Amino acid sequence: MAKFEGEIAFLGLGAMGFGMATNLVTNSLPVTGFDVWAPTLERFTQAGGSSSPTPREAVKNATYVVFMVATASQILSALFDEETGAIETLKQGAVLILSSTGPPDHSPNVRKLLDERGRSDVFVVDAPVSGGTIRAANGTLTILASGTEEALSKGRPVLDAMAGPNLYIIPGGLGAGTKVKMVHQVLAGIHIVMASEAMAFAAKLGLDTGKAYQALKEGEGSSWMLENRGSRMVVQDEKIHSALGIITKDVGIITAASRKSTTNPGFPLFLSSTTEQVLATGISSGFDRDDDAKLTKVYLPATPTLVLDLASPATSSPPTFSPEEAAKLKLVESAMKAVHLVSAMEAMSLGKRVGLDTKQLFEIIKGAAGGSWMFKERIPALLSGEWSTGGRTVGEIVDDVIDALTQANALKFPLHLTSTALQVLQLAVLKGLGDETDLAVSKIWDAPGEEGVLFPRKA
Amino acid sequence: MAKFEGEIAFLGLGAMGFGMATNLVTNSLPVTGFDVWAPTLERFTQAGGSSSPTPREAVKNATYVVFMVATASQILSALFDEETGAIETLKQGAVLILSSTGPPDHSPNVRKLLDERGRSDVFVVDAPVSGGTIRAANGTLTILASGTEEALSKGRPVLDAMAGPNLYIIPGGLGAGTKVKMVHQVLAGIHIVMASEAMAFAAKLGLDTGKAYQALKEGEGSSWMLENRGSRMVVQDEKIHSALGIITKDVGIITAASRKSTTNPGFPLFLSSTTEQVLATGISSGFDRDDDAKLTKVYLPATPTLVLDLASPATSSPPTFSPEEAAKLKLVESAMKAVHLVSAMEAMSLGKRVGLDTKQLFEIIKGAAGGSWMFKERIPALLSGEWSTGGRTVGEIVDDVIDALTQANALKFPLHLTSTALQVLQLAVLKGLGDETDLAVSKIWDAPGEEGVLFPRKA
Repeated sequence: MAKFEGEIAFLGLGAMGFGMATNLVTNSLPVTGFDVWAPTLERFTQAGGSSSPTPREAVKNATYVVFMVATASQILSALFDEETGAIETLKQGAVLILSSTGPPDHSPNVRKLLDERGRSDVFVVDAPVSGGTIRAANGTLTILASGTEEALSKGRPVLDAMAGPNLYIIPGGLGAGTKVKMVHQVLAGIHIVMASEAMAFAAKLGLDTGKAYQALKEGEGSSWMLENRGSRMVVQDEKIHSALGIITKDVGIITAASRKSTTNPGFPLFLSSTTEQVLATGISSGFDRDDDAKLTKVYLPATPTLVLDLASPATSSPPTFSPEEAAKLKLVESAMKAVHLVSAMEAMSLGKRVGLDTKQLFEIIKGAAGGSWMFKERIPALLSGEWSTGGRTVGEIVDDVIDALTQANALKFPLHLTSTALQVLQLAVLKGLGDETDLAVSKIWDAPGEEGVLFPRKA
Repeated sequence: MAKFEGEIAFLGLGAMGFGMATNLVTNSLPVTGFDVWAPTLERFTQAGGSSSPTPREAVKNATYVVFMVATASQILSALFDEETGAIETLKQGAVLILSSTGPPDHSPNVRKLLDERGRSDVFVVDAPVSGGTIRAANGTLTILASGTEEALSKGRPVLDAMAGPNLYIIPGGLGAGTKVKMVHQVLAGIHIVMASEAMAFAAKLGLDTGKAYQALKEGEGSSWMLENRGSRMVVQDEKIHSALGIITKDVGIITAASRKSTTNPGFPLFLSSTTEQVLATGISSGFDRDDDAKLTKVYLPATPTLVLDLASPATSSPPTFSPEEAAKLKLVESAMKAVHLVSAMEAMSLGKRVGLDTKQLFEIIKGAAGGSWMFKERIPALLSGEWSTGGRTVGEIVDDVIDALTQANALKFPLHLTSTALQVLQLAVLKGLGDETDLAVSKIWDAPGEEGVLFPRKA
C-alpha cells in the first residue's frame, strides 16, 4: 500500500458509504464524515470517526475527499452549493474521489466545472465501486479507477485502503472507470431480471424450483446473478440484500446514455431497454423497496409466491429429473443461454463502442457480478478473433429458444428478455451474418463500413 | 349477388358464428347449424335454422360448409374425427369455407388431407373474417377469400351473403387470405396494446385522460384501435366487447409463424413479439375474460382504475391544454407515432416477405382495424418508391421518442412497445440506412443482397 498522508473527508454515509468510511477509520485513518441523515452521523462518531454538518466544513482539512452520495447531482451540490458546497474550503491540491454511480460524462463534467472556478489545482479520480456492503466494510470493494496518472497516483493510498487487491486502474482518462462499470451493469441488470424470468418460468412449468435452481446454476445457462439471487428465491428470505430501486437506477443510467441520437448516433441496447421496462413494472407494482430477487412477482402476478412454494429444500446430492422434467428444464436453460449470449455481445459491443480495452473489460467482468457461463465461455473467441461455432450455429440456438417461447406462449407466460434475445438472433439469421454465433450477433452493432472492425477475425 | 343453389351447413355458432349463420337464415337460405354447446343450437333453431348433433349429420345435404369453430385444430376434428367427422357424409363437389382463424399453412394442409383421403372433388376456400359481431349479423363482415378460381367462384354466393361489399378476393392461392389477415392482425395486436400503453402513460403523467383521448385520436399518433378501445377506457364500460384472450390467440399465431428458423430463415417481428409478452402478462394477471381495453391495468398495477379516474366527460368543443399539459401530451403522441411507424414497416415487410400484393394489402388495411394515421400517411411512399423524409429524419423521430422514454423512466412507467420501437429506430440510425424514415426502417428487414428489393426506389 502506498504511503498515506493527510486527512480524509467522506461525503455520503449510506449502506455502502458507512461501511467504506468505517473501514478507513478501522485502518487508523483520520476520517471526517458528512451525511444529511443525522442519526447516521452519530453512529459514525460512535465508530471512531469525526462528523461535520456540511460538506464545506467536512473538507476543510482534507487531502482526500471521497464522494459516496446517492447520485451524480448530489456530488454537484456537495461541491458547488452556494451555502454548503465544499469548493470554498477545498485545500490546494486536494484529491476528489468520485465513487457515486453517475453517467460516464459525469467526472469529466466535474473536472470542467472545477477548472471554470479556477481550481485546476484539485485532482479528480473517477472511482465507481461495486461489491456490496460486506466488501465495503472489509476494504475489498472492486474499484474501477480512472483519471490522469498524477491524480491516480495521488489518490492511490485511499483507493488501496478501500479496494485492497480489487483495485483496477482503467486506461482511457477520466470517466473510463464509469464506462467499465456501465458495461458491467448492463450485464448485471439483464442477468438480475433474467434470473427472475427463468426461475418464474421454471415455476410456471411446474418444476420443483429448488431442484431446478440446483441444476441451472451448474449448467450453461448459469450466471453470477442466477446463483446469487436464485438462492434467495428458493428459501424464505425477507432480508433486503439489494433493493430493486438500486439496479433500476443503474440500468436507467445506461439506457439514458445509449439514447443520444442527434449529437451521437445512439446505440441500440435491446436487452437493456427491455430490462428497464420490466424493472419499471416492478417499481410501479410497489416493489421498489423489496429485494430485487422478488422480481419474480412481476412474472407471476396471480401467484406471487409460486417460486418459493414449489421449492424443495436443497440436498447435498445432485438433483435428478424425470425425462419430462428434464425437457422442461431444458426450455428454461435454453432461454437463459440465449439471453446471456446476446447480453454478452450487447455489453462487449457497447464497451468497444465507448472506447474501452475489451480484454481488460473481459478480465474484470468474468468473475464479477455481471459474469455468466456464456460470457466466460464465448467472449475469449470474440477477443482473439479465433472464431468457431462452438458446436452450435445461430440457427440452432434460435430453434432451442423458439421451443421455450412456444411453450411459454401456450402457458401465457411472458418471457420479456427471451423474446427480445430471439429478435436479435433472428435478425442475425435474416441478415446472413454467419453461422459463428457470437460473431454473427456482434455484427448487429457494427456501423456501416465497419464490419469486422469491432471484433476482427484473426488473419 | 351470384345465384345461390343448395343448402348450407354452419359449424361453430360462437359469438361471431351465430350472427353469421343467423344472417344467412334471415336471407332465406337453408342453414343447418352445429355447435358443441346445446343451448346455442336451440337458440339457432328458434332463429329459424335447423340443428344437428354432429358435423357428420350437419353436412349431409350441404353444398356449402362454413367452418367458424374456434381454432384450426377444431376444423380438423370437425372434418376428420373418426366418429363425428364430416368427411364421411360430405357431398360430391361440396365447397368448404374455412373462416376460423388459423396459421397460414392451415388451409393448404386441409386441402392436402382431403386429397389424401381421395376427396379431390371437394373445393376449399380460405376465408378468414374480421369485423366483429354486429357486422357478422348484418352480413357485412370483411372476408379475405383465397383459393383456386373455381373454388372461389363456387363459394361466391355464400361469401357474398356473409360479406356484402366487404369481400376481398386475395390473389396467391389457398392461404393467401389468411396471410393478409395475419399481417392485419400484426397491426391490430400492436395497436391494441399501444392504445393501453398510451392512455396509461397519459394517466401516469397526470393528464385528464378524457381530454387526452379527444386530442390524440385526432392527431398523428392516432389509430383505429386508439379511437375504438380508447373510447371504452374513458367511460365506465363493463361490457366485454372483445375479450383479451382473442387478440392474444391471434398474436400468438403470428409470432409462432415468424419463429421458424431452420426450415425458413425466420423473420424478426420486434413489436409483435413485445406485444405477445404484454398480452401474456395480462392473461397471467387473470384478465383473459376482460375486454382488451382493460389492458391498461397491466401498465398501472398499483392504480388500475387511474385512466378512468382521470377522465373528464367528453365535450363537443375541442379540448384545450395548458403549455405544461401540451408538453406531456406530446410525449404520449411521440410514443404512439414511433410505434405506429415501426408497426407499419414491420407489417408491410412481413406482407412482402410472405409474397402478398402490398398495394392490395395497403388498401385493405388502411380503413380497417389495423389502420393508423402513420400507416395511411407513410405507406403510399413506400409503395410508390417516391421517398421523402416527410419532414422528419429518423434521427429527429428518435429524439422525440427519447424524450418520452426519459420521462417514463423518471416515473418508472414501463413503455414496452415504445422502447422496442426505439431500438429498431436506433438500429436504423446506427446502420446508416438513410434519413428517409420509412425506407430506413423498412431496410431493417432486408435480407443480404436484397437491399431495396422489398420496397424499391422509383428510378
